[in-house]
Amino acid sequence: MARVMNFNPGPATLPLAALERAQSEFLDIAGSGMSVMEHSHRGKVYEAVHNEAIALVEELLAVPDTHAVLLLQGGASQQFATVPMNFLGADQSADYVVTGSWSKKAVSEAKIVGKVNIACDVGKDGKFTRIPKQEELKLDPNAAYVHITTNNTIAGSQWMSYPDTGSVPLIADMSSDIMWRPLDVSKFGLIYAGAQKNIGPSGLTLVIVDKALVAKGRTDIPNIFRYSTHVDNNSLYNTVPTFPVYMLRNVMAAVKEAGGLAAMEKQNLAKAELLYSAIDGSDGFYRCPVEAGSRSVMNVVFNLPTPEQEADFVAKATAKGLVGLKGHRSVGGIRASIYNAAPLAWVEALVSFMKEYK
Amino acid sequence: MARVMNFNPGPATLPLAALERAQSEFLDIAGSGMSVMEHSHRGKVYEAVHNEAIALVEELLAVPDTHAVLLLQGGASQQFATVPMNFLGADQSADYVVTGSWSKKAVSEAKIVGKVNIACDVGKDGKFTRIPKQEELKLDPNAAYVHITTNNTIAGSQWMSYPDTGSVPLIADMSSDIMWRPLDVSKFGLIYAGAQKNIGPSGLTLVIVDKALVAKGRTDIPNIFRYSTHVDNNSLYNTVPTFPVYMLRNVMAAVKEAGGLAAMEKQNLAKAELLYSAIDGSDGFYRCPVEAGSRSVMNVVFNLPTPEQEADFVAKATAKGLVGLKGHRSVGGIRASIYNAAPLAWVEALVSFMKEYK
Repeated sequence: MARVMNFNPGPATLPLAALERAQSEFLDIAGSGMSVMEHSHRGKVYEAVHNEAIALVEELLAVPDTHAVLLLQGGASQQFATVPMNFLGADQSADYVVTGSWSKKAVSEAKIVGKVNIACDVGKDGKFTRIPKQEELKLDPNAAYVHITTNNTIAGSQWMSYPDTGSVPLIADMSSDIMWRPLDVSKFGLIYAGAQKNIGPSGLTLVIVDKALVAKGRTDIPNIFRYSTHVDNNSLYNTVPTFPVYMLRNVMAAVKEAGGLAAMEKQNLAKAELLYSAIDGSDGFYRCPVEAGSRSVMNVVFNLPTPEQEADFVAKATAKGLVGLKGHRSVGGIRASIYNAAPLAWVEALVSFMKEYK
Repeated sequence: MARVMNFNPGPATLPLAALERAQSEFLDIAGSGMSVMEHSHRGKVYEAVHNEAIALVEELLAVPDTHAVLLLQGGASQQFATVPMNFLGADQSADYVVTGSWSKKAVSEAKIVGKVNIACDVGKDGKFTRIPKQEELKLDPNAAYVHITTNNTIAGSQWMSYPDTGSVPLIADMSSDIMWRPLDVSKFGLIYAGAQKNIGPSGLTLVIVDKALVAKGRTDIPNIFRYSTHVDNNSLYNTVPTFPVYMLRNVMAAVKEAGGLAAMEKQNLAKAELLYSAIDGSDGFYRCPVEAGSRSVMNVVFNLPTPEQEADFVAKATAKGLVGLKGHRSVGGIRASIYNAAPLAWVEALVSFMKEYK
């Protein structure tokens, strides 16, 4: 079958060039007579891949020397626990800004570890349709850190600028929008991202951390969960997920080849503009519940007049090769995830289908 | 380049059939128009892979209904921490049997979490050359559990029968020898294994756990680290490492096709017998430091008269396509890792080279 137009929310579509490169050298990488998966994580062939992946992340995001790039396991769900385990002292509290389901999960895990202050919860009425303004945040100047979720895959909302947290470290779950555009990494104490949306396959977690923050982390937790362990060992303390790291390398190389993050931003804005215009220009047939200014350029959510029409829309779109459009089971509706690897042509095809369907 | 004879200790060689299957459907699995990596972990295509992988593990190991098969992340190193986090209460102690470097690492992490009793340490003199006898173990009848490492990749030793721990749960790190032969799973409270030796690529941890033990686990730790979370969600609580699970499925299918674990055992014993005979029959040119009865059928370690000759041996073997034979940096010497996926022909080629080299 020809490749479909894949709007999956994550694991998501990957650049074809990254996949084809992997397929072509699947049994024999670099003339070594074996798959990258069969190489020791401490051997030269894999180490070159590992270090190139890190170097490409550093280059694309212009990561400053103050910060370290880590390649870990366990996804954002594990970071929900290890962030407070490392940085939330027994006599402290951490600020959490709640903008969607994933923020709530981060709060739940943090509460098991220590004391949490909800600096803002925009979904108190049960619906997450916006990002809060700076003045709404009840930030504690003595907080251990402030935690935000930069993009909300289920709600379809996204922070377009980040809050000012003064001298308190800002920690961000960027699982679903990291590298959608250039970023000032220096503003963050720690950034984490499950790879499976914008940058690679599942099974790999990218962490970018301020080394000064790491040095102040707790030392009474298992070594495997201390960020300092992984900073000190270039993420080779234990066996890394070598194939997912290899795929990250391939995706980063493809992003660089395509013009880097400035090019990603330009294309992502064009895709989102096209799709939101089609929704807003449909005389109310398609409706996006998210407020203007808070709308995600990664996950575009919208509704049709009835759930029955939504199910019919998804079925007919699938028949045309537009797949993965069903909204999250908790909210229903339609969701088009248009990460970096989704080309403009797919969004054009979706918009064309939406007009036809209406 | 033609595929080499790969004696890497892990990540290690994988069955060629499993790799070729992956390569052929790398861009399009099951006629879905996308890679398995691009499928949602909650979609039908991936779920079929996930459930088949678990079913094959259950079938090959004859896992009883009392036990659950989990697909997790973080490798054995993370299990070193999560085992005591789940099962070691504040007023309890756990028994650890130390037979090599990995056992020691397990002890280090457990000591951060709670109280540890070293039931036996066969390497007190700095060398791990044997597995202890039952009567040497100073087991605490009130221990939370007894922890063993069934195969020692660096020392080259292996438990050929497992200790009797009475009513105390036996927990085993089987990272480097799981599925080398049939196993009575019912004797274990928990088995864990980083996949990257006998059963798949790195980035995936297989856990087999007694559901009754899990039900008694601690509830004051983050949900992501509770085994009960993963038992309750069929390992789909968070996003699983989909491609490593897919590769596990392919490897399990290849093992089944090759005759299952009885066939693995027969072949593994034949390979080990051939190699140890060559060592023991070399008039002392090759010497294995491990005591008879404790020698590993997975990692065969041996020495030549001098470190210089060992380096020369490795270089000349590599030139003949016999790769990965250098011993672990902490002990030196030669190590031939001959996991399930290493065919008898490779061991025959190695033995032939050893005779020629001598």
